[in-house]
Amino acid sequence: MSSIQLTPTGKLRHFLTIEGLPRDMLVSILDTAESLTSVKDRSIKKVPLLRGKTVANLFFEPSTRTRTTFELAAKRLSADVLNIAMSTSATTKGESLLDTLRNLEAMHVDMFVVRHAQSGAAHFIAQQVAPHVSIVNAGDGRHAHPTQAMLDVFTIRRHKPDFGGLTVAIVGDIRHSRVARSQIHALNTLLTGEVRVIAPQTLLPADVETLGVKVFHSLDEGLRDVDVIIMLRLQRERMQGGRLPSEHEYYQQYGMTTERLAIAKPDAMIMHPGPINRGVEMSSSVADSPQSVILEQVSHGIAIRMAVMSMAMQHNQPDKAPQAAT
Amino acid sequence: MSSIQLTPTGKLRHFLTIEGLPRDMLVSILDTAESLTSVKDRSIKKVPLLRGKTVANLFFEPSTRTRTTFELAAKRLSADVLNIAMSTSATTKGESLLDTLRNLEAMHVDMFVVRHAQSGAAHFIAQQVAPHVSIVNAGDGRHAHPTQAMLDVFTIRRHKPDFGGLTVAIVGDIRHSRVARSQIHALNTLLTGEVRVIAPQTLLPADVETLGVKVFHSLDEGLRDVDVIIMLRLQRERMQGGRLPSEHEYYQQYGMTTERLAIAKPDAMIMHPGPINRGVEMSSSVADSPQSVILEQVSHGIAIRMAVMSMAMQHNQPDKAPQAAT
Amino acid sequence: MSSIQLTPTGKLRHFLTIEGLPRDMLVSILDTAESLTSVKDRSIKKVPLLRGKTVANLFFEPSTRTRTTFELAAKRLSADVLNIAMSTSATTKGESLLDTLRNLEAMHVDMFVVRHAQSGAAHFIAQQVAPHVSIVNAGDGRHAHPTQAMLDVFTIRRHKPDFGGLTVAIVGDIRHSRVARSQIHALNTLLTGEVRVIAPQTLLPADVETLGVKVFHSLDEGLRDVDVIIMLRLQRERMQGGRLPSEHEYYQQYGMTTERLAIAKPDAMIMHPGPINRGVEMSSSVADSPQSVILEQVSHGIAIRMAVMSMAMQHNQPDKAPQAAT
Repeated sequence: MSSIQLTPTGKLRHFLTIEGLPRDMLVSILDTAESLTSVKDRSIKKVPLLRGKTVANLFFEPSTRTRTTFELAAKRLSADVLNIAMSTSATTKGESLLDTLRNLEAMHVDMFVVRHAQSGAAHFIAQQVAPHVSIVNAGDGRHAHPTQAMLDVFTIRRHKPDFGGLTVAIVGDIRHSRVARSQIHALNTLLTGEVRVIAPQTLLPADVETLGVKVFHSLDEGLRDVDVIIMLRLQRERMQGGRLPSEHEYYQQYGMTTERLAIAKPDAMIMHPGPINRGVEMSSSVADSPQSVILEQVSHGIAIRMAVMSMAMQHNQPDKAPQAAT
Repeated sequence: MSSIQLTPTGKLRHFLTIEGLPRDMLVSILDTAESLTSVKDRSIKKVPLLRGKTVANLFFEPSTRTRTTFELAAKRLSADVLNIAMSTSATTKGESLLDTLRNLEAMHVDMFVVRHAQSGAAHFIAQQVAPHVSIVNAGDGRHAHPTQAMLDVFTIRRHKPDFGGLTVAIVGDIRHSRVARSQIHALNTLLTGEVRVIAPQTLLPADVETLGVKVFHSLDEGLRDVDVIIMLRLQRERMQGGRLPSEHEYYQQYGMTTERLAIAKPDAMIMHPGPINRGVEMSSSVADSPQSVILEQVSHGIAIRMAVMSMAMQHNQPDKAPQAAT
Repeated sequence: MSSIQLTPTGKLRHFLTIEGLPRDMLVSILDTAESLTSVKDRSIKKVPLLRGKTVANLFFEPSTRTRTTFELAAKRLSADVLNIAMSTSATTKGESLLDTLRNLEAMHVDMFVVRHAQSGAAHFIAQQVAPHVSIVNAGDGRHAHPTQAMLDVFTIRRHKPDFGGLTVAIVGDIRHSRVARSQIHALNTLLTGEVRVIAPQTLLPADVETLGVKVFHSLDEGLRDVDVIIMLRLQRERMQGGRLPSEHEYYQQYGMTTERLAIAKPDAMIMHPGPINRGVEMSSSVADSPQSVILEQVSHGIAIRMAVMSMAMQHNQPDKAPQAAT
């Protein structure tokens, strides 16, 4: 999986999943994002890194929110952006996905940002595209949402810079969450501490044991000594077959309240990928508390996406001589 | 109401309603628009006043026309523009309006252009946003449509520069019209003459006496000695309960024809916010007559929106030292 | 027809149809496109030819694909682009097409790219617009799709540079195809060879004899000694009354297969305006064969549209003194 994401010389070509990416690459993304966060504070919030490049947002699944952050990131890099809602496009005229891709390539689109309801869609596309094109996965089925995971670890690193010995708990519907899956890979690669998942058995994936996490079914137990709490969104639209009794009951057992938050470390950060269901995943008092960094996450999402896009776009640039100084 | 629109030093921060804005501020908007009208005649129709800024069009009510003029105005100021059709966005995922706003703020959007079916929506949003964000009201319920009113008075001033002693008649559905309400405030603040409203009793607001206008029920009587005639659009979509018998009957009584236009002063201007219902509010011969300035209004709408956007965006810039020259 | 497309001094003002345009003008478009093809290979894929200009895509008929190529072409020329889906715009508020046009003109839009289901729509609009505005026809009913025809002849010229004595066959539903009509005019103006159409009688237009083509009903016969094969898309959405028995039967008689391709000259090019119905107009092996230039066509579509847009936008520039050098 990782080989397709990197060039032979180890540069980022596609960004599809955290899984298999070396630690150095993740750190490099975080560092690039760090250098780009200042762009938002300039009076002119633009850098010319992608000037004259064309980025196409291929959203097979609608998502105003994610599309907007990618669009903003691309525009702040000075790229031209095409928004293509795939359901209404040529595929309805009987054109296959592959033909659509070949056509966009022929129009000299440089990067596709892909969201798709099917796991593996971004990989499939990455395997097919021309050498000059890069793919960024903006969420595929239950599989991965790697820019979300990177903005999460970026947010953690900004508050707890050394990552050393941190305990991070992910709470909620792990089973249906591409976000959780990517977070676990990112945290395990970068963290020296412990990753916990807290969920009822029905909301855990079958392979949870292989993910390198400690499983808790009780929120109160799982929160003990935790530095970072990541609440997942209850993906009602992805759930079938009544795994959950009701939102009310869920909140009773797994909703974050001020009282429960007090079980974690006093300086524990509370995170959520958004949009929040207030009163389901957490109370409003928690969402708006000083420990909440939820809006910081949104803000850092732009910087992370700028970092990933600009790094991937350089994959076909000639290497700069690395020992030029000596 | 006005206090929220101005900074402590009296600069424009939000542009929500004409009501309560000082005369100087309105004149300053008109003068800025005047200086920006020449942009459209340049071969490169751009000024860098908003370069690197992000403007989000938040349209809770669809309006291609108004959205397009704001989008063009923002682009001619070199801003990046996000179009967010709010009905299809995260609010359908159960996210509250406030969470949506906080998220867009976190993405470092600098300005929201808001259109909403509910009166007061733009004010509500302005009360909530972060210090760096400006709100421009693009129409809220029956309350206000202040950029429309400003482009109207701008168009009047271009033809009758001194504003002195002008008589202006507003004809039609005053009751349901945010445009009329804003026009009346603008005209009363800027004009030394008389503002008339001409409408059947059923299409007048309950508080019409307090608005500082002279009421006429007969079009023929109300048009006498008038310098400027503003026809309102018949807002069929906002009317309920049969206040109007039929479009045909309306045209008989309140439709503008060449004959009726002759009752006003010979150089009377005829205006309409568009889109016109030909044969309902006015005949085609009136709409296309030399006295009609309806298309000028559209053109000036860009300049006024550029003026308001660039002025509001400067609210958090440091004041330039005013006596620098001495 | 041609007079409306050219200024009195013979410059391109509108681009509505190939019919009636002089050979020199078509060659000039091809040459300009040739000089612009290199733009796509630059690291910054932009030229400032339309900087500060506003291009509005007026699509009365949805077409993501064509709209996207025009949008990309305009952006690579540095224009600002407005996408206006006309069905959802002010025309639904009862505003006439003409009022919509007048309004967009008043907003200082410089160019309209028009797609419409009705033949003649682009001409009608071109007859109405203000002197500074240019119209580019992006497909009107069964009438014309001139940029498609130009990108086709551009693609042919790149492979067979002298155009001399070529035999070109157009295969499929000539009757309902605006593409075929424009291709025939372009080929007859530029080519010294022979233009053939291959179709069943039911899919030929009534006036086929007047178009200057040689008619074949048998694919095998028509392909003999052919240099260029243009397959048309089966316009299922434009067909009524059962002129065709079934897609399967069509493929049996007029579908391009590797075997049939072998009837043409060994270096025959195979073309298609896209999107392809694989297994209807041609087999996948033909679509993806080395003789296929279908994706090149897409790529050249950007260059041709850039050429047409930049040439039309110069119609109201002063002529540069042509003998300045002497």
